[in-house]
Amino acid sequence: MSAVWERLEPRLGELADLDSALRVLGWDQHVMMPPAGGAGRGRVMGTVQGLAHGRLVDPELGRLLDEAEADETLHDDQTAAVRLARRSYDKATKLPEGLVKEMAELASVAFEAWAEARPANDFSIFQPHLEKMVDLKKKAADAIGWSGERYDALLDDFEPGMTTAEVETLFDELVPALKPVADKILEAAGERPEFLTRTYEVDKQEDFCRWLVEQLGFDMSAGRFDVSPHPFTTHVGRGDVRQTTRYDSNRLLMSIRASIHETGHALFEQGIPEELWGLPTGDIQSLGLHESQSRIWEIQVGTSREFLDFMLPHLKEWFPEELGNLSPDDFYLGVNHPRRSLIRVEADAVTYNLHIALRFELELALFRDEISVRDLPDAFDAGMEKYLGLRPETRADGVLQDMHWAVGGFGYFPTYTLGTLYAAALFDRAREDLPGLCDDLRAGNTTPLLAWLREKVHHVGSRKPGKEIAEEAIGGPLTSEPFLGHLKTKYGELFGVEF
Amino acid sequence: MSAVWERLEPRLGELADLDSALRVLGWDQHVMMPPAGGAGRGRVMGTVQGLAHGRLVDPELGRLLDEAEADETLHDDQTAAVRLARRSYDKATKLPEGLVKEMAELASVAFEAWAEARPANDFSIFQPHLEKMVDLKKKAADAIGWSGERYDALLDDFEPGMTTAEVETLFDELVPALKPVADKILEAAGERPEFLTRTYEVDKQEDFCRWLVEQLGFDMSAGRFDVSPHPFTTHVGRGDVRQTTRYDSNRLLMSIRASIHETGHALFEQGIPEELWGLPTGDIQSLGLHESQSRIWEIQVGTSREFLDFMLPHLKEWFPEELGNLSPDDFYLGVNHPRRSLIRVEADAVTYNLHIALRFELELALFRDEISVRDLPDAFDAGMEKYLGLRPETRADGVLQDMHWAVGGFGYFPTYTLGTLYAAALFDRAREDLPGLCDDLRAGNTTPLLAWLREKVHHVGSRKPGKEIAEEAIGGPLTSEPFLGHLKTKYGELFGVEF
Repeated sequence: MSAVWERLEPRLGELADLDSALRVLGWDQHVMMPPAGGAGRGRVMGTVQGLAHGRLVDPELGRLLDEAEADETLHDDQTAAVRLARRSYDKATKLPEGLVKEMAELASVAFEAWAEARPANDFSIFQPHLEKMVDLKKKAADAIGWSGERYDALLDDFEPGMTTAEVETLFDELVPALKPVADKILEAAGERPEFLTRTYEVDKQEDFCRWLVEQLGFDMSAGRFDVSPHPFTTHVGRGDVRQTTRYDSNRLLMSIRASIHETGHALFEQGIPEELWGLPTGDIQSLGLHESQSRIWEIQVGTSREFLDFMLPHLKEWFPEELGNLSPDDFYLGVNHPRRSLIRVEADAVTYNLHIALRFELELALFRDEISVRDLPDAFDAGMEKYLGLRPETRADGVLQDMHWAVGGFGYFPTYTLGTLYAAALFDRAREDLPGLCDDLRAGNTTPLLAWLREKVHHVGSRKPGKEIAEEAIGGPLTSEPFLGHLKTKYGELFGVEF
Repeated sequence: MSAVWERLEPRLGELADLDSALRVLGWDQHVMMPPAGGAGRGRVMGTVQGLAHGRLVDPELGRLLDEAEADETLHDDQTAAVRLARRSYDKATKLPEGLVKEMAELASVAFEAWAEARPANDFSIFQPHLEKMVDLKKKAADAIGWSGERYDALLDDFEPGMTTAEVETLFDELVPALKPVADKILEAAGERPEFLTRTYEVDKQEDFCRWLVEQLGFDMSAGRFDVSPHPFTTHVGRGDVRQTTRYDSNRLLMSIRASIHETGHALFEQGIPEELWGLPTGDIQSLGLHESQSRIWEIQVGTSREFLDFMLPHLKEWFPEELGNLSPDDFYLGVNHPRRSLIRVEADAVTYNLHIALRFELELALFRDEISVRDLPDAFDAGMEKYLGLRPETRADGVLQDMHWAVGGFGYFPTYTLGTLYAAALFDRAREDLPGLCDDLRAGNTTPLLAWLREKVHHVGSRKPGKEIAEEAIGGPLTSEPFLGHLKTKYGELFGVEF
């Protein structure tokens, strides 16, 4: 074995271990921690983060990376790990320590201000903190450096290797085509089926979702399935992937959908090969690719006629009284019933990406200095009207609806749409490779699709950038065609619309 | 503020934060972690432990402690924190790093061997590892140093400030007096009441215990109450104290008793004053004192006629069919019904300390080189016969029944008996200070007793050694009289025995 690798690997392992400790602390904070534990937990996580940061910026790690980059005996996996470690090291060492601290403190203060501003419907409470945040993020982007434009540096935190220009091209192709398709679908959609708003006992929902999640392939012996206000998935350690969902007695489909979505994320994490554990190549870096895995299960599988035909009789076992008379046609219609919503997280598959397009557009304008934070609320409302045909009546439903900006997460939103586009393209390709896929799904057999995703996506880990992995799996460049095609086919059949 | 304190306090806080992170990881490991997560978790905890150890033995901490010890402007709380930090620093720096690593590795290997040996009933699987463990513990004791005898250094890990000689004197006073009392009680005890072995639905037990634990004063908004195979309590962070219990449908009283026991520990942790958080004075160092708090609630409160008279009608609300006809007399008798058991963790309040006496005697003999590991199994069986009048038929029920020695926990056992003695003495004193205590307990009002314990014990934290705190609260030296008196009074009345 390479001598430098022998010294480098334990250091990378140590960083992975500290990340794992922080993930356990974070999962616990959101799922288990009692209310009074908050302040103490923040301090503990800050201390561990500080130690982890100290280990990351240790000049000895820089020297080992120099050596490793010059070592021609490293095999490809090692070279990939070195490349990712170099990226983290450079980012961490380029950011002045004072700026890192300032951003962390501001994230906490700005989040509190946002949490206060939203119910109060008062953007002015949040505005000064958001201005400061944009300012610090610009400084951070400039410290890290960029070649095309400033937003590249932000995007790189969530979708390494993709440029703003590439993402903008995708949105420019998608949005003008999606808007009229969505309008037509929404116009054609009739009344909301009544079963959607009935009451379903939460304990039974929980029991059904646990069955469903295992049915999809989630390994409970190497993970957990719990409840939290905002569903999320995290790999807290080797052999330990945890997902959460949420329940509302009046929103059965929301729980099912959130559970399938998170299962998609969790299956990706459970598919990372053993040998990548403790290395940066075992940590999924592309949020777009991550989202593609949640989306493909949530949308391409979870709202398909085939899988819903399989699911309904089982769901009736849990809810015989509530759903006993529901026909497969009505179930399929109900699951896919679209409607205009002001709220992104409640949006359906048809309109969701219009919500994202607006946010991406506003982020770009902010970081291109074309708009100021002061002008955001009105720009947000105008954009909602332009894309969704709805005007928020409150700031809470408008510019204050998401928490991403409060914690400095600029560059995150576009990965939702990348995930949508990847998912549709991957599924089209899987259908070509697996001629029996539709029959499999109708029989509830998701194993072949999972095996395909494992081979094409999961097992690669982060050895390659997300876009490269996706395009190799798809067998061509990413476009919005598969996604638009999916909408047109599905809703064309459902509502007899022609596009 | 003292300049050295200003530099020292954040370092102590950092050590407390890392301890807190390890406690969350440990709690999660025992309560939440899926089976496949074990190996990864071990590595993560090892990494965090290693970093924490590195921060503890940092020579800069030693210099700060030197300075702090010379600083006459520190107030008493600060001086107490410095004293405890010095103790940890000295212990950690005196132990050679190689020995620390060897002990940690052996603890893991020896535990595995014990876990294999016990069901196999084969001491020889465990023997070589235990021999090695005793050997390493002797080396560790010698490296840390001792003045009276080697066992002092081991005892100091669990009961700082007490010597082997003091503890031995207590046992020498207790055991010859306890043995005939226990024999008389066991002889007089009649048939086991039948309700003890009925079946009680676990969900209802859980619900009842949750009610009971809150009734006793446990603050659920600053803690959790969960399930684990071995009940335990841990303060995972400020405002976050977690206890667990276990349930068995055929052993209602076991669950209730374990829940009250752990609540006693948890109330102590929840009573540590805010201002001690992040300091070694906020970390309870005396396991004897800790055990006194679990015991006083489990035994002095939880098996008292007064509290049981309060508890029974409530218990009947949960189990109307099973317990509807049970009389207060029979309930009191059932809860306090003693019987000889081979198994320490199943022993009653009468015989429990005889189990401990045997283990303490064997530990002393081992570390005084009066007995070798090879001879332990027979010595254990002979001791059981001598103290309990029972001879184990298997090694599993004999020398292999506890895991303490497998992980090197020599010096831990005697703290159980210290806790028993402290608890009885504290309760006698509380009864003097609170003339209405019996009436309060009969009404289910535990607030006055909790307030008394908070003032006398909890609020002191670890500002003083455990024995000093207990003796100040008791108002005199610790003896076994209150405990023996408690047994004689209770069982004299119950069975009409005269002592």
